[in-house]
Amino acid sequence: MASGMEIERKFLVDPVPGDLDAHPSSRIDQGYVAITDDGVEVRIRQYGDRAFLTIKSGSGMVRVEEEIEIDRRRFDALWPLTEGRRICKRRYLIPAEGGATIELDVYDGALTGLVTAEVEFESEAAAAAFTPPAWLGRDVTDDRAYKNQRLAVDGLPSA
Amino acid sequence: MASGMEIERKFLVDPVPGDLDAHPSSRIDQGYVAITDDGVEVRIRQYGDRAFLTIKSGSGMVRVEEEIEIDRRRFDALWPLTEGRRICKRRYLIPAEGGATIELDVYDGALTGLVTAEVEFESEAAAAAFTPPAWLGRDVTDDRAYKNQRLAVDGLPSA
Repeated sequence: MASGMEIERKFLVDPVPGDLDAHPSSRIDQGYVAITDDGVEVRIRQYGDRAFLTIKSGSGMVRVEEEIEIDRRRFDALWPLTEGRRICKRRYLIPAEGGATIELDVYDGALTGLVTAEVEFESEAAAAAFTPPAWLGRDVTDDRAYKNQRLAVDGLPSA
Repeated sequence: MASGMEIERKFLVDPVPGDLDAHPSSRIDQGYVAITDDGVEVRIRQYGDRAFLTIKSGSGMVRVEEEIEIDRRRFDALWPLTEGRRICKRRYLIPAEGGATIELDVYDGALTGLVTAEVEFESEAAAAAFTPPAWLGRDVTDDRAYKNQRLAVDGLPSA
């Protein structure tokens, strides 16, 4: 859950660094159980050996985000409901300048070929001052096609 | 969660017994966080002092029902997402013949005026042998307008 202000930038990765396996990584499998017209999403996510159910409403008058830890059995039982609305990837944690960490995601399944990286900053100033390493490509922070829900439902962006 | 075979009949109640308050009762507030076209429902329910989140998929190849106990704070946080898709009622537990229990529900809110009763049986034979008390009215077991999700979304049935 977002605690206070959270500034994040998302980039395409090109070229993919050759030393990825030198960094710690975890498997992430997430899928959408329900996405409604009025802006509610119900998502399950397995990150390493923990699993979560998140209910989020991002639009309208009511903004809600509730994350509930669930056990592996429950995750497995709910996973079939997410078919066709999944993001499966391996996340590498790569240290960057100024103490930041780059989360580099290598997707598989329907999104094979896509590699993105997210960097989280503590302030607008830190975000603006950030000099991306050469292997960070196009900034897709504001490109809706690269939002998680859209990637899960629509698949690989065309550009 | 259904454990094995479960046979249930649902009736309208007419007239409502005058001695309801002689029976134990609990408040039930339930609402739908999400109902999708492909048959997934995500429901929250407060029953007395406990609360649950249930994810259910009743159609298609995948039948799933997972119930997760949640705390009161979470229930309260999610409740606004259910606006316009709620069932609020008081449930009375009334002993019936053969050791069965009649769950009599007096609705309020948008469903004020509706009173239903459900009886659960251990076998088809027990269900068939059941003689309803005089105050149990029309059998609406197979009437889709009286299903919980329909009551929550569509409100009072017209007939």
